[in-house]
Amino acid sequence: MPERDVALLGCGLIGQSWAALLLAHGINVSAWDPDGDALAALPRHVLPMLDQLRALGVAAAEPGQIRLAATVEAAVADADWVQENAPENVALKQRLYAQVQAAAPADAVIASSTSSLTWSALATGMARPGRLVTAHPFNPPHLMPLVEIYGTEAAVVDRAVRFYQALGRETVVLKKEATGHIANRLASALWREAVHIVAAGIADVADVDRALVHGPGLRWSVIGAHLAYHLGGGAGGIGHYLQHLGPSQERRWASLGQPRLTPEICQQLVEGIAQEAAGRSIATLEQQRDQGLIAALTARQQLSAGDDHAV
Amino acid sequence: MPERDVALLGCGLIGQSWAALLLAHGINVSAWDPDGDALAALPRHVLPMLDQLRALGVAAAEPGQIRLAATVEAAVADADWVQENAPENVALKQRLYAQVQAAAPADAVIASSTSSLTWSALATGMARPGRLVTAHPFNPPHLMPLVEIYGTEAAVVDRAVRFYQALGRETVVLKKEATGHIANRLASALWREAVHIVAAGIADVADVDRALVHGPGLRWSVIGAHLAYHLGGGAGGIGHYLQHLGPSQERRWASLGQPRLTPEICQQLVEGIAQEAAGRSIATLEQQRDQGLIAALTARQQLSAGDDHAV
Repeated sequence: MPERDVALLGCGLIGQSWAALLLAHGINVSAWDPDGDALAALPRHVLPMLDQLRALGVAAAEPGQIRLAATVEAAVADADWVQENAPENVALKQRLYAQVQAAAPADAVIASSTSSLTWSALATGMARPGRLVTAHPFNPPHLMPLVEIYGTEAAVVDRAVRFYQALGRETVVLKKEATGHIANRLASALWREAVHIVAAGIADVADVDRALVHGPGLRWSVIGAHLAYHLGGGAGGIGHYLQHLGPSQERRWASLGQPRLTPEICQQLVEGIAQEAAGRSIATLEQQRDQGLIAALTARQQLSAGDDHAV
Repeated sequence: MPERDVALLGCGLIGQSWAALLLAHGINVSAWDPDGDALAALPRHVLPMLDQLRALGVAAAEPGQIRLAATVEAAVADADWVQENAPENVALKQRLYAQVQAAAPADAVIASSTSSLTWSALATGMARPGRLVTAHPFNPPHLMPLVEIYGTEAAVVDRAVRFYQALGRETVVLKKEATGHIANRLASALWREAVHIVAAGIADVADVDRALVHGPGLRWSVIGAHLAYHLGGGAGGIGHYLQHLGPSQERRWASLGQPRLTPEICQQLVEGIAQEAAGRSIATLEQQRDQGLIAALTARQQLSAGDDHAV
């Protein structure tokens, strides 16, 4: 991979996780954050993530070096790649890009981890918009394979695909930009119904989560939703499914809930989560999530090692 | 488990898979199907599923016996439990229940595998509606842990929970019945947006599926959607998330698509699936799905063996 030096702008959860992934792949990281404490804490946050990556077999013979930069300009001065993980605020990100354009090498790509803003909004006012891509990772990026990419300059998009693939990521390039890209649109759609099911008194928060984890979630970790309906059509596949069950699917779509996040429903969600968490702290839940992800990813590695025909 | 003899009505995909699960747990199966060929093929279909269950460590010292019954009455005559897997047709299922009520022991529970019909519709006209439960498995039932249960008689619902838990299933009891129960409502909601993303030209079928499998699907195989947003709120959890990102979530909900399954969109889906399948037959895809599920389930078993605090 030609990129050896990556500037990380923003050292929150996403920035920390990117840092771990980059370092484990032998890439140098120049990190900057407006909050000096967050910046100083980066090496400490990265350590346990490097251990998790080692458990997955991701550890370069020569790990990358981490450098804490006092300014945006210092962070990007020698960067091949700039990964921006600033808060979801268009004006703030645009100001950062102006600084980057003034101080970074001309051929450095600027990649935004934005989950909810569009490329068009972010690229407005850039001298060369084509050097910007949105490259949305799924949290936590050092474990979750997906990176969703959108850009307008084909060579830059190709370079982004190669960059993230070299980091062991699964890249999906959007043909057209969309708020929430693909994954968060799907997640939003599902969660809306999950909130409806709680609000309508069909099931509690914890039971909705259990149904997902032991039902569709498990299945979607193996095959996608489209392909699942293809198999749901029996020998006739998706064609048979659409012909025979398409109308009942449309009726179900019409019956889906349209909840609002009213104070009452928010209260129900907060209480339901408290029951589900059963005293476990956020840190404990994150640790358990990561253990589950590492186990699932290890299972995938073993499966693809034994079979060339992964779905 | 007190249930030793189960009558299976309907030997399609779901019936076959139930049969394998029951036999592997040492339970005798009396099977009936109006299609004599489907009935005769049952033992042959069950064999590879028993192998899959053995790979997961599910194999009773004394496996159950399988008996093919010529009539509904013969199938249910000595049954402790009746699992009905007939086509999704209310009148047809009600006719079956009339036969079952006339021929089965009075204390045998009637459980319907229905995915899309409600308990109320099915129970109409029964002498003792309380003996009916809906017990919806997720396809394929011998691998997918989830069984969603609804009934109106507490003792029968409790018995259903114990029955399916003894089969190693994860049970979720609905507080109120709902078309599509929980899991298929969630799946429908997600698929509607998945179809919209294809129809709107944002991404192809295969890329939507890849984004799901490497993003939210993987995550939802480990933690539910509600809990995921709890962790998305950082140290403040779901309360912080709802306060700060609730409005943007509502805006995203408002932006979700409302596609129809028009001939044009169906054509796009069929062609997209063909590209994704890339020549793989339904049988091959099913086999690959099952291999993936078995790997994921094995990883879960290992994880829960090593840790009492599974999420």
